[in-house]
Amino acid sequence: MRNIKLTIEYDGKRYLGWQRLGDSDNTIQGKIENILKQMTTEKIEIIGSGRTDAGTHARGQIANFKTESTMELAKMLEFMNRYLPRDIIIKKVEEVPERFHSRYNATGKKYSYYIWNDAIPSAFERQYTFQYAKKLDIDRMNKACSLLIGSHDFIGFSSLKKSKKSTVRTIEELSIQREGKKIHFTFVGDGFLHNMVRIIMGTLLEIGAGTMIVDSIEEVFESKIRQYAGETVPSQGLFLDEVYYR
Amino acid sequence: MRNIKLTIEYDGKRYLGWQRLGDSDNTIQGKIENILKQMTTEKIEIIGSGRTDAGTHARGQIANFKTESTMELAKMLEFMNRYLPRDIIIKKVEEVPERFHSRYNATGKKYSYYIWNDAIPSAFERQYTFQYAKKLDIDRMNKACSLLIGSHDFIGFSSLKKSKKSTVRTIEELSIQREGKKIHFTFVGDGFLHNMVRIIMGTLLEIGAGTMIVDSIEEVFESKIRQYAGETVPSQGLFLDEVYYR
Repeated sequence: MRNIKLTIEYDGKRYLGWQRLGDSDNTIQGKIENILKQMTTEKIEIIGSGRTDAGTHARGQIANFKTESTMELAKMLEFMNRYLPRDIIIKKVEEVPERFHSRYNATGKKYSYYIWNDAIPSAFERQYTFQYAKKLDIDRMNKACSLLIGSHDFIGFSSLKKSKKSTVRTIEELSIQREGKKIHFTFVGDGFLHNMVRIIMGTLLEIGAGTMIVDSIEEVFESKIRQYAGETVPSQGLFLDEVYYR
Repeated sequence: MRNIKLTIEYDGKRYLGWQRLGDSDNTIQGKIENILKQMTTEKIEIIGSGRTDAGTHARGQIANFKTESTMELAKMLEFMNRYLPRDIIIKKVEEVPERFHSRYNATGKKYSYYIWNDAIPSAFERQYTFQYAKKLDIDRMNKACSLLIGSHDFIGFSSLKKSKKSTVRTIEELSIQREGKKIHFTFVGDGFLHNMVRIIMGTLLEIGAGTMIVDSIEEVFESKIRQYAGETVPSQGLFLDEVYYR
């Protein structure tokens, strides 16, 4: 059995997210598995590094699958990109050791979130940013970022109710760049709980707009109460940029 | 009568171009005129700085219209952006002297054209660039640009068969920036003939790929023969960035 690793880019706007939902194939995983079935004549199940929500985009999602196929890697790349919808692109196909597992072996992830910070929307950015018209104080948001960086129990910044597994995660980088009317937030960490990036983003926006104090971050950590954090911002501003492996 | 000037941004991919076509309103002009009719209860005709083709985008198209309406400019902006499709955005509404005419008064225009220069397409750029996989020699293309800059009869670089009016135009700037896999071509000139940017682009690509010599530019100028130039590249890589007035 060969183990094949895929690097995948997708524009998530038309899809229900990464994870296949029964027979519906309007998911990224479903679309790719359908093509792989045609390509290999095997029933293929791909393992993603993690789910992405409906509407979320990816520049470097990773998945792997096992196959008996002897097809060359370059041919696989060509076949997949020929038959996949044009908003799902396979950027790279590699053969990896049999024990490689996209999810279990991932040691970290990088996400971007984009805000369109203007009262007038953008015809081009509307599906790749979240429009937020209020003036944002970047210094205040940077102070909040410095409280978020490090190892913390992020359950209050997630949509999990309870968890048997640890909800401690480490954020290694959380930085903000203003690029004209677009504000780019970069998140690097060892893992992210469900909706964690989007809830942190909602909290940073309220802090930037002045409707929440910087110390609210500490309050969410201490109380673990989801309601003390900001709202979950929409998925269309979120990009999975990269998945890290050793 | 008030004379109102609009600065308009649009994602052209869903539209048949700028110019209204009979009763079909699947044009940018048609969409805007329909909204203005609702807004003013007058039958409004807007004058654009020029047409853009089906699929071409704009960041700064200019149009003007005459109205009896006494509505405040800020209210007009709000009304239009509320009811227009979200891929057409009014960026600015200004009141201008009655003699201002978007087309006759335009003294120049700036266009961008984007190439996605890679064998693997991009999920995000596919509708805003033209994918061209061949290796491109930027130096050779820059040499061709220096021959194009200045005042020339560009009829061979246009889709016009004949013209009673002058087909001499002046290109003031034609520059190339590589931005990763994206190559950005900037055109600034006093006016552009029909398909001129797209035919020059097709010619520059052949020169960059080595299938045409740099001196082909001179040959098209001298012969005025369209067939000596390169192909017309697709409209989806073209953006009208700015229209200049005195």
